[in-house]
Amino acid sequence: MTSEVVLATNNVNKAREFREMFKPLGITIKTLKDFPNVESIAETGDSFEENAILKAQHLHNQTNLPVIADDSGLQVLSLNGAPGIYSARYAGDHDDDANNQKLLKELSNKTNRDAQFVTCLVLVTKDNSKIVVYGCLNGEIIDHSVGSNGFGYDPLFYVSSKGKTLAEMSDEEKNSISHRGKALNKLLNIIENNFLN
Amino acid sequence: MTSEVVLATNNVNKAREFREMFKPLGITIKTLKDFPNVESIAETGDSFEENAILKAQHLHNQTNLPVIADDSGLQVLSLNGAPGIYSARYAGDHDDDANNQKLLKELSNKTNRDAQFVTCLVLVTKDNSKIVVYGCLNGEIIDHSVGSNGFGYDPLFYVSSKGKTLAEMSDEEKNSISHRGKALNKLLNIIENNFLN
Repeated sequence: MTSEVVLATNNVNKAREFREMFKPLGITIKTLKDFPNVESIAETGDSFEENAILKAQHLHNQTNLPVIADDSGLQVLSLNGAPGIYSARYAGDHDDDANNQKLLKELSNKTNRDAQFVTCLVLVTKDNSKIVVYGCLNGEIIDHSVGSNGFGYDPLFYVSSKGKTLAEMSDEEKNSISHRGKALNKLLNIIENNFLN
Repeated sequence: MTSEVVLATNNVNKAREFREMFKPLGITIKTLKDFPNVESIAETGDSFEENAILKAQHLHNQTNLPVIADDSGLQVLSLNGAPGIYSARYAGDHDDDANNQKLLKELSNKTNRDAQFVTCLVLVTKDNSKIVVYGCLNGEIIDHSVGSNGFGYDPLFYVSSKGKTLAEMSDEEKNSISHRGKALNKLLNIIENNFLN
């Protein structure tokens, strides 16, 4: 039996990442593109978790299907956790280049470049049960972009254990270590016995 | 291997109900009585879910153990959902008799006696994942107490499919149909493969 889960995103990169991870479970991922009449909801939460729950619950209310929403972001230690929940709109809304340039500028006089990617992933099931998991990836922000895969801050995010940035990794390699990959694996462990009713 | 889960309650009736349900999974239930230094937290939420999460997260932060918290209550249709989150302190704080008397008084001139017991159950795992499930039981409020088992509004809550009130049922029979039993079963289904790390 094939189960369907709606992913609360229009981002094709994110959708690809999730499809790859859910394929082995026989779960088909739909996205907001499959529900053109669903209005978007403002991400007014104060945390990754609040935003992810807002998005998941809203879409579940409209579709009556199991929904997964995530909220992810970059937290930089010497910037007191910025850009955080504002990661996608730090300098310009979903403008990766502008966001990366602003990040480099803010860090220009900082010696500590420690950073963490965080994902909060929420599954709302058909019967309105809710599963909330987190995934984190530690790294450091280098001073210029390297690599052309991935999206967002990936070209600036250096993972020392791999000796390269996230943007230098294949989808498969990135999924195996990334914040989103870790959160997804936690979620997959929980729903493996098809807890989606 | 025996896993330990802390149940955020001092209520011996509730603890007994949970112990009975978790025993088959080899999970030992501890309660607040095992952690006398943990200060209680005010239930300031606006919903069963907010209160359950408040309690679970607080206790998890103090113990670093998996924690289950629930918030339950009675929602009466013709009272616009009252007593709701105030069920345990409707007339007097955890004074079952006073609460039951107030409920009967409020309903004295109402013909619609439909009611619903609701439980929201939250598990916070060691790694801070969160599972939120709901359980509901429909019934009606009769005009005098019947039965001596259970607690709270059980003697007034008549379940037509069983032909008796919750307070006339054994623990086993009540657990098999109750709001808390249903929520617990959902949760047990999810954690059966020992998702507690």
